[in-house]
Amino acid sequence: MPPTALSRVRAAYDLIARADRADVWITLRPQRDAEADARDVDARHTAGERLPLAGTVVAVKGNIDVAGLPTTAGCPSFAYEPGHDAPAVARLKAAGSVVLGTTNMDQFATGLVGTRSPYGAVRSALDPERVAGGSSSGSAVAVALGIADIALGTDTAGSGRVPAAFNGIVGLKPTRGLVATDGVVPACASLDCVSVFARTLPEARLALGVLAQGGAPSTPRAPGPWRIAVPPTAQLGELDDGWAEAYEAAAARLEAAGAELRPIGLAPFTEAAAMLYEGAFVAERYTAVGSFVDKGTPDLDPTVAGIIGRARGIPAHRLFEDQARLASLRAAALAGLRDADALLLPTAPGHPTVAEVAADPLGSNARLGRFTNSTNLFGLAAVAVPAGTVAGRPFGAMLVGPAGTDENLATIAGLLTPPVRLAVVGAHLTGQPLNPQLLALGARRVRTTRTAPVYRLYALDTDPAKPGLVHTTDGSGAPVEAEEWELPAEGLGLLAAALPRPMALGRVALADGSSVPGFLCEPDALDGARDITAYGGWRAYRTG
Amino acid sequence: MPPTALSRVRAAYDLIARADRADVWITLRPQRDAEADARDVDARHTAGERLPLAGTVVAVKGNIDVAGLPTTAGCPSFAYEPGHDAPAVARLKAAGSVVLGTTNMDQFATGLVGTRSPYGAVRSALDPERVAGGSSSGSAVAVALGIADIALGTDTAGSGRVPAAFNGIVGLKPTRGLVATDGVVPACASLDCVSVFARTLPEARLALGVLAQGGAPSTPRAPGPWRIAVPPTAQLGELDDGWAEAYEAAAARLEAAGAELRPIGLAPFTEAAAMLYEGAFVAERYTAVGSFVDKGTPDLDPTVAGIIGRARGIPAHRLFEDQARLASLRAAALAGLRDADALLLPTAPGHPTVAEVAADPLGSNARLGRFTNSTNLFGLAAVAVPAGTVAGRPFGAMLVGPAGTDENLATIAGLLTPPVRLAVVGAHLTGQPLNPQLLALGARRVRTTRTAPVYRLYALDTDPAKPGLVHTTDGSGAPVEAEEWELPAEGLGLLAAALPRPMALGRVALADGSSVPGFLCEPDALDGARDITAYGGWRAYRTG
Repeated sequence: MPPTALSRVRAAYDLIARADRADVWITLRPQRDAEADARDVDARHTAGERLPLAGTVVAVKGNIDVAGLPTTAGCPSFAYEPGHDAPAVARLKAAGSVVLGTTNMDQFATGLVGTRSPYGAVRSALDPERVAGGSSSGSAVAVALGIADIALGTDTAGSGRVPAAFNGIVGLKPTRGLVATDGVVPACASLDCVSVFARTLPEARLALGVLAQGGAPSTPRAPGPWRIAVPPTAQLGELDDGWAEAYEAAAARLEAAGAELRPIGLAPFTEAAAMLYEGAFVAERYTAVGSFVDKGTPDLDPTVAGIIGRARGIPAHRLFEDQARLASLRAAALAGLRDADALLLPTAPGHPTVAEVAADPLGSNARLGRFTNSTNLFGLAAVAVPAGTVAGRPFGAMLVGPAGTDENLATIAGLLTPPVRLAVVGAHLTGQPLNPQLLALGARRVRTTRTAPVYRLYALDTDPAKPGLVHTTDGSGAPVEAEEWELPAEGLGLLAAALPRPMALGRVALADGSSVPGFLCEPDALDGARDITAYGGWRAYRTG
Repeated sequence: MPPTALSRVRAAYDLIARADRADVWITLRPQRDAEADARDVDARHTAGERLPLAGTVVAVKGNIDVAGLPTTAGCPSFAYEPGHDAPAVARLKAAGSVVLGTTNMDQFATGLVGTRSPYGAVRSALDPERVAGGSSSGSAVAVALGIADIALGTDTAGSGRVPAAFNGIVGLKPTRGLVATDGVVPACASLDCVSVFARTLPEARLALGVLAQGGAPSTPRAPGPWRIAVPPTAQLGELDDGWAEAYEAAAARLEAAGAELRPIGLAPFTEAAAMLYEGAFVAERYTAVGSFVDKGTPDLDPTVAGIIGRARGIPAHRLFEDQARLASLRAAALAGLRDADALLLPTAPGHPTVAEVAADPLGSNARLGRFTNSTNLFGLAAVAVPAGTVAGRPFGAMLVGPAGTDENLATIAGLLTPPVRLAVVGAHLTGQPLNPQLLALGARRVRTTRTAPVYRLYALDTDPAKPGLVHTTDGSGAPVEAEEWELPAEGLGLLAAALPRPMALGRVALADGSSVPGFLCEPDALDGARDITAYGGWRAYRTG
């Protein structure tokens, strides 16, 4: 059962107070307003209304209309009071999510850094020395900190994906047209998409299903293994230390999960990416807000105002040239993707510090878009997910595919998340009755081993029969036969969510000194249970 | 049997000499070169090669590459020697057509008038006071004068249709992508199409079938009557005298042929049409040839150079605005066409004189594109056909439909051509052996009547038996039983083309004082033929 909306809202405001991250918000709603909405959701839920997002809270990027809050696009003097919610916001609310407020962003969504804002530079949720990434910086951090369950961003050059990578969360950049962009201050009106942040893929997919006009997309494909296009690492260009290895590990993970890797040339993608700011396409930003920027209000971010102001003079004949070149690059890119379900890329080439961005605002930003800039120019869909860590910081990988393949990309992305371990000692062991549960969750057995000699094993009164593993500190413990399995974190979460009393998930020490998650049991289940430690394990007890 | 290629080429050069229309050509090939090609075609034909265009000659607009001839785009200082034929030219040649030369045009295909050329203003084939229309002026006149059977034009704003209207011929503006535009000097590269001129729809369709990449298009449709969208005449704006009536007559003709007329609002079409030159789209012309025009060579047409030069300064942010507006107009236009097979329009709003165009080069040109300018902006297909006359000059109508409906549009256009009359007195009479020929050509009997009393009738020595109708001026004539039929002009042309000796087509006076085309015979066939005038007609003679 999901938390009540009211308790979820209260927890969010507690966390906002404790997190002390004013840089995340442009307009935080008064807690009593959010609580009133939450009470309404709880009443609707109680009345039997189907509310797939009841019990969730959402943060909305500052360039998306929320009725009752000013839409600023990161610029106070630009602000207006929208008459009603953007359709994307309205859909989340209708599904039971409660809006917390609007979030900080690179002004006019012009940037991938998250520092171009008079509301302050936004720092990464995981490393305050480094940028949060932008332009949807506040939305990503609100999710990464656990304040919001879902956040809306926008994505033109990569604004819905780079911040996901820099904060260790999921970012869905849907096929253009899937989510309405009405009520969004345009950056490049012909490219803009509303994007979704969440901590896990299932949450993000659920939100996208609610947001999608006409339902979530489902592109049928021929049966068979996923086919993943992987460019030679050399074509990725210069990356932060360790990122090439992390990328190759992500590709290896897909291959280990049964995908077929095939080479692809990255040249059309990187050439198009460079065109987004260096070519004539940037003029569309002047179309959107140029006449406002020309007024020169003092709260304009100087870097943003410079980019948009310079775009005024770009001639239309250069735009025609660039559009023709883009069409030919797009054809080459689609040809490269013809026999693949997705292209695997790092989400960004590296993660700069706030100081590095301040020292070179344009150069650092341009580098960040190397892999994301081409996606909307080519009309593709993309999913950015955490795919491991490098030096303790998140490494983000991205799957890019043809329009309409959003669901496929999310499914493939699920294979990228580094697997987690699980120690089992009873009914989930190979050949035992609950082992098929593990297999259905995509788990594979790593090894058969034993626990550290600090446990006792009891036969519990359950159906099916299960043992209870109990840690001892009195020296009476013994090693117990165990299997170590590897499975997607999502699978472990599903196991945990479905756990029946008196079973529990905890940390289990193994014979080699490592410790992994494993099944334990609640103490009250041991009352009158038979101690079977002497058998050395559940399997020996059952066959003995 | 088609004429041999050699005899067709010789006839073309004879006609070129007699027509004395130097304004039609930019580069006319030496007759011996064309004859050499013709001999080659005849040899291939004799060797059994399938050559659907054997025996035809083609004129090629001056902005399309023909190997061995300079490509000028109407500007001598721009000329280059192409290494090979444009694919469109190569396909016609491969099918047996012989190229006569390259034709005059509005410089850089920038115009709908046909007067913007250092090679001279091109006059209409039918009225030398008036313009030929452009930019494919020379190609249209070469066809209208009977010099060429087929001509290639290009169509961006209407250059393949306005000249068809002003010269009383057929112009097909194919769906973009159907005919390759490689080897064509671009006007607006994202809009340009190669177009086809011919005197009749079947000839034009045959040529399009040869030109089409991957075969001619065929869009299936639900059975039932053609559905024709017809705007209120008031929305057509100001037209030349009598043109509104001619337009309404064309609509009535479609309805009489079984089509269903349905109203449509023309606003999205006319607004988009105005954007083509008044908005930012014209900047694409600078992309194409701006750097050349900036050199200011003395053979630049001043009007063309002015248009392209001014396009240099149009900002890209305005182009984005126009592209967004166009997308919304296009959606409205396609919604309007959703329940129709085609939109019926006049091809142009009027036919100006050479002097009127000289007095107002920009205004007169802008008016001409009122109905054609939107077609390529919206990605549609169109067919322009003669649809009657006004004050003795051709009136052209146009059918516009969704991409891929080229064949449907041509079929509907066939219903537009005003039918012609034919008087028959012999083997083509109802019930006589050759009457099925008429029925197969779509003819219908209008009435049974008699000729004026100025004929004598003879029984000829033919198989099947036929009479010879002979006009007399010596007072010995008598009325002869006749039937008046109505049939497509194309049908009459086919009858004429297939006429065996000694039969002839001439003008026959009827009892009511009117005169219509009808069958006569050559005088030498009367030697020894029996005078059957006394029977009062062929039927009475045959049954008597």
